[in-house]
Formats: sequence, structure tokens, C-alpha cells
Amino acid sequence: MSLSNISRDTLADPVALASRLIACPSVTPATGAVFDALEAMLVPLGFAVDRFLAGGAPDGPVENLIATRSNRPGPHFAFAGHLDVVPPGEGWGSDPFTPDLRGDLLYGRGAVDMKGSIACFVAALSQTPDCPGTISLLITGDEEGAAVHGTVAIIERMRETGLSPDLCLVGEPTSVHRLGDMVKIGRRGSVNMWISVAGTQGHVAYPYLADNPIPRLLRILSAIDAIRLDEGTEWFQPSNIEITDIAVGNEATNVIPAEARARISIRFNDRHTGEALTQRIRTLVEAGGGTLEAKISGEAFFTSPGAFSALVAGAIRDVTGIEPELSTTGGTSDARFLSRLCPVVEFGLNNATMHKLDEAVAVADLHQLTKIYAAIVERVARG
Amino acid sequence: MSLSNISRDTLADPVALASRLIACPSVTPATGAVFDALEAMLVPLGFAVDRFLAGGAPDGPVENLIATRSNRPGPHFAFAGHLDVVPPGEGWGSDPFTPDLRGDLLYGRGAVDMKGSIACFVAALSQTPDCPGTISLLITGDEEGAAVHGTVAIIERMRETGLSPDLCLVGEPTSVHRLGDMVKIGRRGSVNMWISVAGTQGHVAYPYLADNPIPRLLRILSAIDAIRLDEGTEWFQPSNIEITDIAVGNEATNVIPAEARARISIRFNDRHTGEALTQRIRTLVEAGGGTLEAKISGEAFFTSPGAFSALVAGAIRDVTGIEPELSTTGGTSDARFLSRLCPVVEFGLNNATMHKLDEAVAVADLHQLTKIYAAIVERVARG
Repeated sequence: MSLSNISRDTLADPVALASRLIACPSVTPATGAVFDALEAMLVPLGFAVDRFLAGGAPDGPVENLIATRSNRPGPHFAFAGHLDVVPPGEGWGSDPFTPDLRGDLLYGRGAVDMKGSIACFVAALSQTPDCPGTISLLITGDEEGAAVHGTVAIIERMRETGLSPDLCLVGEPTSVHRLGDMVKIGRRGSVNMWISVAGTQGHVAYPYLADNPIPRLLRILSAIDAIRLDEGTEWFQPSNIEITDIAVGNEATNVIPAEARARISIRFNDRHTGEALTQRIRTLVEAGGGTLEAKISGEAFFTSPGAFSALVAGAIRDVTGIEPELSTTGGTSDARFLSRLCPVVEFGLNNATMHKLDEAVAVADLHQLTKIYAAIVERVARG
Repeated sequence: MSLSNISRDTLADPVALASRLIACPSVTPATGAVFDALEAMLVPLGFAVDRFLAGGAPDGPVENLIATRSNRPGPHFAFAGHLDVVPPGEGWGSDPFTPDLRGDLLYGRGAVDMKGSIACFVAALSQTPDCPGTISLLITGDEEGAAVHGTVAIIERMRETGLSPDLCLVGEPTSVHRLGDMVKIGRRGSVNMWISVAGTQGHVAYPYLADNPIPRLLRILSAIDAIRLDEGTEWFQPSNIEITDIAVGNEATNVIPAEARARISIRFNDRHTGEALTQRIRTLVEAGGGTLEAKISGEAFFTSPGAFSALVAGAIRDVTGIEPELSTTGGTSDARFLSRLCPVVEFGLNNATMHKLDEAVAVADLHQLTKIYAAIVERVARG
């Protein structure tokens, strides 16, 4: 792997660093060149870099990177994120993997989600060489995909090597209108379920020779629709069940169908787990004569507002003048895994263009975010 | 049109007559040659033949035929039926429009449904030249298709010309296992309805920005499923509602759909009408926030068991030794229209091969049915 010399100036410039990362195509799951580029930045800054592959086809192989730098005794603070990106799609104004600085914006796939943030991690760490304690970077090549061999494998690797962060900041793009306006202290969990009810096909003129599965499915779905999981919490919206599809697939007006299927999606707060919800719905479905399959996309995570979120909010306020909203909205992220280890918050760039064509980050935001991340590192070290 | 001479022997032979009709392809809607063939049989028997075209594309034109023969004063008895056939499909053992006498069976599309029965009408009438009263044949070229310009147009034509039968026998193939085992004295009606509920599409993570139509559809369908239309009557099974399809068409697990649709099918006895059922379900659907479209395939018909059905049953018993079951089962037929005019029963050949490949009629059944039809004509004339 290439460890070409990088100047101190470059290591302090998040625009230059983000450009180097964007220039390495890394559609999920990512391995290789983009990790070479990151390693080349971290080694000159005194980090020990542990890279490893996890998993095989179809969800891997996935490359993961754990970088650590320890000074005098002190807290262990981790930056977490991912170098893989979603596919660029067709119709970009410039090549998605050629960083393109036009006006005040740097264009490229991953500019905000989240190579830009990782560049800010590095630039911030180049400015804080002597902080006491341990700094680590936990960087996966699969957050956007199946995410089964990514951060989960990093956590397992840390368990094996005895690494255990005290606090973790995930650099996902959480800002909505202006850099700093939102910090995530939790995310709802998500589970999808597929319900199937079997019957016996027949002719509508002879209903006693058939067994229509639709009325059974209706009773099951009515029971599910009547469930109110909770009324929400101080920090979370109410958990919510949506019936997202019903499919019978019977085109013939005179035929009683043989099967009826439905799909539900549950977004749940920290009062529930995907497994418990699955059991609850499965019991109801099976009692109604159906079968159920479930896929838990992610458990809920929640870091109670406290010292850590106050520290992050203070750094944001000092650099930008903005008081961030502490939020639990939006989709899932790798914070759902890392929150098992220690308090986790998520904070990063403006998410307006993430996953879209012509993804772009404001150059000014990269510099501001570097300052915020450096301030967070210093405040954590100060204790 | 060709009015070639047909010998008396041929006019008395239902196998020869059925073969002539089968030889004229007449996939629904039918016009032309097959009506020429029937007219050529009826004119030598003293019938006045009125042929007329009704309707245009796409459901027509349809040819219809009204043949009448009046002797001394007496009752007006009508044989009714159709010369059109369903498409033959692929895979016949012989050409479907070339009558093929193999062993005891005559093969060809329409052999039982219902050119064979019409051949028996003619053969029976050739044996009963001097019966008092009026005999008519009401023969359409569209019973198997849309049926909007067929028997309905015949009834209108009769109204215009002052024809009004006192009794009507529809020659549909009603026999199940043996010729004579079933006479239909009624049929259930049929109506299909399409229900649609509109909502607002959105992301499952933001349910307050969307409006899921599925719960509304569930409530509508549950209310429909709870309806018990009746407990049946002495002669009819209970009317029945089946939900035959639900379609949302949403493939995305994280999307709340914009629309949900369902289809129901109602088979109803003579305690209901299609229009009243449509109104009842429409009221329920609209109260639940949905819209409804309905298509009435046919109203129920019922001829109370009485003198006419007893007469038909007696003729069957005398010729075959079988006591026919009086039934109201099965699908719809043109009897639903004719029953507005006078008592109607349906009786004809064995229906085992109707609408199937290698449709065939037993030669012996054609001769037996001719005898039964002749006996019916004589008994009606006797009064």
C-alpha cells in the first residue's frame, strides 16, 4: 500500500483530504485504494493502523480500519464512520469520483456522506497532536450496504484486542439547514415483516369448495393496525407500525385466491427491540392462521442527553454560534451498533445532497467542521 | 342465403343437423353462415324466419334469429339458445369446426354448448308438425360474449312485433352425469365490484407527512366481510360475497403507498338484485373513504317449481327413466333475460366437455334429447 509523503499543510486541509478520498471510487462494500489513502494520512499523524477484511460474497469482502493514537493516560475517544458510498447513478454534472471544486462547493460522491467528515476527522487530529488519552478512528467499508461485516466486525475486533472507547462520535451528515443545527442522540430502530396466509383456490360460484385466505389476512392486519406501541418518550416520537403492502395477485374476477400476503414496517423507539416486536407480531399472525418472516434493519439507539451531548453542543456553539437541536429522527446508522459500547452521538455535515446526484459539500463547512471536531477532541481530553 | 333442399330424414336426425351447425365456425359474436344453416332447416318445417343484426364493434355486430310457426289457437312455447361458441383453443384431436363422428361421440366446438341442443330442437319440431298453438325459436349469436346485443335484442324485437311466449325452455347443457339428471329452474346473479382508497404517499420514517390508505381499506373490507346477505332459500344457496383480490403494488419496504385497491365478487339469489347490492356496498365504501365501480354480470332468475317444471321433468322421466333434480346452481345464462317474459327452465345435454378441448356429445344423447324435447312440445300443446 502506498504511503506517499503528505505535507503537514495537506494534513491540515480538509478540502485536500476530502478530495483524495473522493478520488478513490468506493461503492459499497469498499476495500483497497480508499483505505490506502486514509492510512497514508493517519500514519504521519502517529496513528497505528489495523486494517482487516471481513466476510465473503455476497455481502463482502468488506475492509475495515481501526487507527489508534495514545498519549498520556486519559479518556478513549473514538471517531466512527465509513468510506463506502452509495452508487452514483446517472446524470452527474461532473464525474462523481473526480473531486471537482466549483465555486464554494466540492462535488463528488461521498462529499458529505461521509468522506468529507472523515477528512475533517483527520484535519482536526493533525491540529491536536498532544491531547492526552487515546484517540481512535473506527472506519468501515460497509455502512451503506448489508452492514453485516462492517462496524459489527470492528466491534468484535476491538473486543479481541481490548480496545474500548469511552465516548464515540459518528460523523454522519446530521445537519439539516446549516452546519451545526442538529445532533443525533438516538435513532429509531427498524424492522420489516412479511405476512403470508394460505388458503385453497376455487371458483367464486362454489365457495364451499374453496378457502379464501383474504378474510384471515384482514383479521390479522386489523389486529396489527389496532396496536399502539407507545405514546412516544421525551426524546422519541411514538413507535409506528405501517402496513406498506398487500398483494394477492389474482386477476380473475371469478376465482377465490390461494394465498394472500402483506408487508409491514415498524419504526420503533428505545422502549422496544426488533426481536421482541417480531415475537409479538409473530404470535398474533400465527394465532390468525398466517406465517411471518422478519428482517430487523437496526435496533433503536439512544444516548441520554448529558455531559457528552452538552460537550458536543458547546463545541458547535462556540465555533458556529448555533445551538444544535438534539434529535432522534431519521433513518438508521452504525450508531446502533456502537451505542452498545459507550455513549454515542452523531454529528456531521449538511445532509441535503447525500445519496443524490451532484452530491457536494461547502468548502466553508469542511473548515468549520474541522474546527468543531478539534474542539470536541480538546474538550474530551480536558475531561 | 343458401336454402338448399334438406330431406325429411335429415330434418329428423339430430346428429346430421348438429354436424351441419358445427361445420359453420361461429366464435362469439356470430353472424352469417351458421344462421343460414339453421334457417335452411326451419323454413321446410313451416317456420317464418326473422333474422336481424344488432350492435356494432366491439361487442357486435351480433346476428339474432326469431322463427315462429303457428297452428290453431294454443299456448306459445319458445325454445331459446345460441349458435355462437367459445374459441376452440389449441390442442384438439380433430378440427373443432369439422364435425367428427368417432365411435359413439360427435366431436366439434358447440357439440353440447349448444348446437347439439338446437339440432334437437329442430329434429323434435320436425316430428311435431301439427301441434296447436305457437312454437318459436329464439336464437342468438351472442350468449358466450358480452351478451348485450343478443337475447336482450331478441326480447326487444318481440316486444315490437307483439310476440310473447307463455313458456320458454333454454337448451343450455344442464345435465351433469347422465342426460336428464338436472333441470335448472333458476340461477344466481353475479356482480363484481372494484374498490379504491386513495391516500398520500410518503416515507415510513415520517408517517405524519403521509396518509396510508391501507387501514381505511381494511376497515371497509372487514365491514364487507362481516355481511351475511341471507341464509339461502328453499331453492337457493345463501348469497355469497368473496373478496377476490387486494392490490397495493408497493415494492418499497420504506414507502407508505398512495393507493390501495380491492375487488369483490357477489353471487346472489333471487332475494337480491345487482343494483341494490351495488348501492348497499357503495354506501359502505364511500362512508369508509373509498370509491366503488361495479359491473353486474347478471341478475338472479327463478321459476318457482310448478306446472312447467313438472311437465319438463315428466317428459324426461318418461323418456329416460331419470327423475331430474331441479337446481339453481352454476353460472349465469340467457335465462336471466327471458325470465322477465314468462316461466323459464333450462334443460339440455351433458355439460362435461363444454368450453373444453375435444368438446363432444354422445350420439345416443342427441336422439334421447330429441325425444324429450318432442314430448315437451306435445305436452305443452296438450295444455
